[in-house]
Amino acid sequence: MERTLYHRLSGGSVDRLAAISDGIFAVTMTLLVLDLHVPVTEEVRRQRPLWSDGAVEPERALWSALTHVGPSALAFALSFLTLGMFWIGQQTQLNYCERGDRQLSWLHLTFLLGVSFMPFSTALLAEYMTVRLALLVYWLNLLVLGLLLLACLRYADRAGLLRPDREPGFTESLRRRILVAQALYLVGVVLALWNTYAGIGLIVLLQLNSAVAPRIRPFDRF
Amino acid sequence: MERTLYHRLSGGSVDRLAAISDGIFAVTMTLLVLDLHVPVTEEVRRQRPLWSDGAVEPERALWSALTHVGPSALAFALSFLTLGMFWIGQQTQLNYCERGDRQLSWLHLTFLLGVSFMPFSTALLAEYMTVRLALLVYWLNLLVLGLLLLACLRYADRAGLLRPDREPGFTESLRRRILVAQALYLVGVVLALWNTYAGIGLIVLLQLNSAVAPRIRPFDRF
Amino acid sequence: MERTLYHRLSGGSVDRLAAISDGIFAVTMTLLVLDLHVPVTEEVRRQRPLWSDGAVEPERALWSALTHVGPSALAFALSFLTLGMFWIGQQTQLNYCERGDRQLSWLHLTFLLGVSFMPFSTALLAEYMTVRLALLVYWLNLLVLGLLLLACLRYADRAGLLRPDREPGFTESLRRRILVAQALYLVGVVLALWNTYAGIGLIVLLQLNSAVAPRIRPFDRF
Amino acid sequence: MERTLYHRLSGGSVDRLAAISDGIFAVTMTLLVLDLHVPVTEEVRRQRPLWSDGAVEPERALWSALTHVGPSALAFALSFLTLGMFWIGQQTQLNYCERGDRQLSWLHLTFLLGVSFMPFSTALLAEYMTVRLALLVYWLNLLVLGLLLLACLRYADRAGLLRPDREPGFTESLRRRILVAQALYLVGVVLALWNTYAGIGLIVLLQLNSAVAPRIRPFDRF
Repeated sequence: MERTLYHRLSGGSVDRLAAISDGIFAVTMTLLVLDLHVPVTEEVRRQRPLWSDGAVEPERALWSALTHVGPSALAFALSFLTLGMFWIGQQTQLNYCERGDRQLSWLHLTFLLGVSFMPFSTALLAEYMTVRLALLVYWLNLLVLGLLLLACLRYADRAGLLRPDREPGFTESLRRRILVAQALYLVGVVLALWNTYAGIGLIVLLQLNSAVAPRIRPFDRF
Repeated sequence: MERTLYHRLSGGSVDRLAAISDGIFAVTMTLLVLDLHVPVTEEVRRQRPLWSDGAVEPERALWSALTHVGPSALAFALSFLTLGMFWIGQQTQLNYCERGDRQLSWLHLTFLLGVSFMPFSTALLAEYMTVRLALLVYWLNLLVLGLLLLACLRYADRAGLLRPDREPGFTESLRRRILVAQALYLVGVVLALWNTYAGIGLIVLLQLNSAVAPRIRPFDRF
Repeated sequence: MERTLYHRLSGGSVDRLAAISDGIFAVTMTLLVLDLHVPVTEEVRRQRPLWSDGAVEPERALWSALTHVGPSALAFALSFLTLGMFWIGQQTQLNYCERGDRQLSWLHLTFLLGVSFMPFSTALLAEYMTVRLALLVYWLNLLVLGLLLLACLRYADRAGLLRPDREPGFTESLRRRILVAQALYLVGVVLALWNTYAGIGLIVLLQLNSAVAPRIRPFDRF
Repeated sequence: MERTLYHRLSGGSVDRLAAISDGIFAVTMTLLVLDLHVPVTEEVRRQRPLWSDGAVEPERALWSALTHVGPSALAFALSFLTLGMFWIGQQTQLNYCERGDRQLSWLHLTFLLGVSFMPFSTALLAEYMTVRLALLVYWLNLLVLGLLLLACLRYADRAGLLRPDREPGFTESLRRRILVAQALYLVGVVLALWNTYAGIGLIVLLQLNSAVAPRIRPFDRF
């Protein structure tokens, strides 16, 4: 009895759920940058007395050191944009939820748990970019995020939590989009079984396309 | 006199209290993941030239390295879900507070202080999973969180801060839920005096049940 | 001309200012805990094979290791509560601001800059608790926070940004509270010139009093 | 078809966009402080037994150690205020957006990606303050932030997302302010080709002026 009441009372605020989601996305997306370490190069340090008269060597040494940061910076930017894509997907759902309940809160919290794993799987991929297992872990993380987002949508739909004034085809449209994106991630991974770089490259292209070129027609649905 | 006025003026916004609570929960839940370090395995690194032709050894070395991350990842996920449970509990209370006051703010801030200790006690438990003292510290953290949540509820009830249109039995329902959860944590700790793993296992099961299986009847009230 | 327009347009939203304040307070208060490191004790590790049969030594070794974390944990808790006090002070002001402007935003951002220094000065105090310079840095941080909060209040009052329906004596009440708190911090520092521990102890007592015992009359105004 | 629907449905909430922006700004601004490390000086530690009787040496040793933290603290404070300036610029735009769409969300997310790079480029500048490449990276980060903010403004204007009741000259006023600030950053960098310290000094002055002296007329438009 009291269980029913508590379960009925708790988790009812979609606003609070949106607030903690924004918070966890914001922290996770920003924590990614902590993996970018300022390079410490002995060549730069050794020549410190020469800096003031415009020596070229420290510049070259730092440039060479920065090029090693490049791949990590790329992985960071891509995960940032990927999380942005999932954030847009989740907020679209939440904007159309009229109210929440305890189970919807738990589904979204589990989704957020997957979100907060992204800095780990991103760092793993950046560190071991040519080891397929690292790619697999990264892909599993994306897959779990997609599945949980689908589960959130399905639950909200069946439990009647969605706004009654939503467009017809709302649920179908969101589901199809998640499935298409996930199918393409799968293609990337299968491709990577043959050639690791090709697989990573495809995922990179898909994410860049979603982020910076949403208007190019043939790729526009991904 | 001016004291009374300041105390009357300050802390009146439940919205701001909810906002900083969401922020602290979001940061704390995400900081947990910082304890997951990407493994650095010399076996993987040593064989870098072999990677491009699909060598199996680096995969195995990384897999073996990842298995050592497993327990930490589990502790991280469990603390994430535990904090999610407390977040739902706290937001249910705040959603039913019509207004706040200075003392309510302080009680919730002290609760949030306990929340922000969780990354420390989680890391301690993950590192020394078989030392009972680590389990004790973790349990004390959960106990303090429960007690402070009870104190917040009791104060809001007595000070007349709750919404007058709340369901009858609201306070009783929330209190009973906290007490049942705490009683089960206590059973886990007593069990751990006999066998550490059994105690941890029970808490793990209880938290997983709350999170992913809220519909299985016999366990549903925890 | 366009300067005037931009300055008139920008910074007008008190809600956004409150949101970023909550965010910076939440992150800062939670980052404090990052200074608590799980102790690594060789005695505990060396005896790992003995753990399963309930050996007492690892428990003692961990207990002894944890006692060294104690002072840091205390400094962390105190700074958390101090920041909570300043958060309540700032949100009281913002709740009574009808609207903002560019200059008010900058004053609050500078206040938030001081807030974000707290993890550094707290860690400094925890590390060098008996060096007066560390106490001085910590006190300067608190002093700057108080002065900036006063400046925010004064500016909002003079620029006519406060709600017209505020209680008479609102500004005076907030100002006096800040001044009394700062005066007591000053007493603590002067005391510390004679005996460091006594000075720290007084500040500790004042902050604990604000946090957990707001009802004890004689100390109630601090 | 379903693409169109999803794109039409997603990213419509300016409030959520503002919320994640506040979150990312708050985390980024606070993470800057993590680069300030409490100095560990052996001279201070070695004399620990002498502390209690008020020895002067530990004070001097800590003072000397703290002076080395100074430049980092300055870089941290400046980046904090710079981010504050961009935050005010972005929130002014968002406050005047009546609604959002998917593309506006992506433009702002890309802007936020640039924001989250600031701790890295700040740490790089603090570490290698006399190497021009570090200054160049820092300047590129500021440039990209300015360009993306311009792109956000241009898109919102052309797509008709701005509030119809905005002041005439709104867009022009915001654009001119960004361009003037960027022009001055450029002058700083050109100056730095001749003398690194002069270039950094100019940027420092400009940012301090924006932050603490918005009333001095001749510099008021920057």
